[in-house]
Amino acid sequence: MLKDCKHVFKLDPAKEISDADLAAICESETDAIIIGGTDNITEDNVLNLMARVRRFSVSVALEITSTEAVVPGFDHYFIPAVFNTTDMKWQHGLMLEALAEYGHLLDYDEVSLLPYIIMNPECKAFRKAEGKVVAPEMVPHYINMMDKLYQTPYIYIEYSGTYGSPEVMQMVRENASHSHVIYGGGITSKEEAREMAQYSDTIVVGNIIYDSSKKALRTIIK
Amino acid sequence: MLKDCKHVFKLDPAKEISDADLAAICESETDAIIIGGTDNITEDNVLNLMARVRRFSVSVALEITSTEAVVPGFDHYFIPAVFNTTDMKWQHGLMLEALAEYGHLLDYDEVSLLPYIIMNPECKAFRKAEGKVVAPEMVPHYINMMDKLYQTPYIYIEYSGTYGSPEVMQMVRENASHSHVIYGGGITSKEEAREMAQYSDTIVVGNIIYDSSKKALRTIIK
Repeated sequence: MLKDCKHVFKLDPAKEISDADLAAICESETDAIIIGGTDNITEDNVLNLMARVRRFSVSVALEITSTEAVVPGFDHYFIPAVFNTTDMKWQHGLMLEALAEYGHLLDYDEVSLLPYIIMNPECKAFRKAEGKVVAPEMVPHYINMMDKLYQTPYIYIEYSGTYGSPEVMQMVRENASHSHVIYGGGITSKEEAREMAQYSDTIVVGNIIYDSSKKALRTIIK
Repeated sequence: MLKDCKHVFKLDPAKEISDADLAAICESETDAIIIGGTDNITEDNVLNLMARVRRFSVSVALEITSTEAVVPGFDHYFIPAVFNTTDMKWQHGLMLEALAEYGHLLDYDEVSLLPYIIMNPECKAFRKAEGKVVAPEMVPHYINMMDKLYQTPYIYIEYSGTYGSPEVMQMVRENASHSHVIYGGGITSKEEAREMAQYSDTIVVGNIIYDSSKKALRTIIK
């Protein structure tokens, strides 16, 4: 679903957003909305946010981070796999449990693996997923492994909450020849959006929405 | 490399084989030879076996199970990833260390990921790779995950040393629509080869070579 998306907004079901801000985000020129977050994701808040976003015509996907909050009715579903975890649970242990429970309900055409490298050791996602710190010199090896050996359709470089290193992203870009590269983390302006768009196929903009929807809208570069 | 291979012989560099038996194996109608094993794999015994196999025209690949025994000159290289391990080391931790050391020497066109499910908890490979037992009811979930989410080019169902369950292999066959399925373990006769070839794209024949090369040759079905 992200193959044709240059820009995506990520909305967190656990965070408050006004109807006016949500309308501005959903009626913008963004290519898609992903609903997902790290903490306090419930069936209730996912359903609620989906219903509010569904009033608009923008495509909306769910990133499944809790098996308690799998809700039908999205255009697409993403299942994360953290390639720099130290615990198989976050690579695909939980995924297998989810497939055992919900697999019979899935239309796999609407589901994609979302292979992550979480670069920022300070963020919640890194701690939750028991991440292993990825030193800059290891970045090309992770990318070559995912791009050429696993041949994953996507590679998601997640700086979650902090703006990433252009040097690291340049290494990602130079080594990824097959996988569609997604960048997320700390984009708050058109300049930052432009910079990270040089090194990735899709940029994801999240937190700034909750600080200033106006600033968030300026990250949409086409 | 295995996409067009119906039958492969796997030779263990740590095991003895006579020149006559090796010639019979290499001059047979098999599609390829894979050199690989679990214990006591050294640069010396890999080099030695490669040199002996290279006298024949059959294609020969190395399965890299020890970074101490990576030898140039093979037609192809396979790097295992054990999807039912309990330790990230055997999923791709060691792979990343190997890429950090040898990555700059690799031509990725000649290297493939070999994604394993090790089904036999009694075998050496299962214990070495700290395997998690895969109950039959979990098999479709592993296959769907690998085939449709990871979209791995190969899925290797490894019974190593024991003949596998046709019921399990039938589930593998029914759920794998994208990945090329490889079966290995305990094939000692034409009948067993035929049975497992129904459920897989490639069958791998190993141990029986060392018991009786004559019996091994009878597993080549075309």
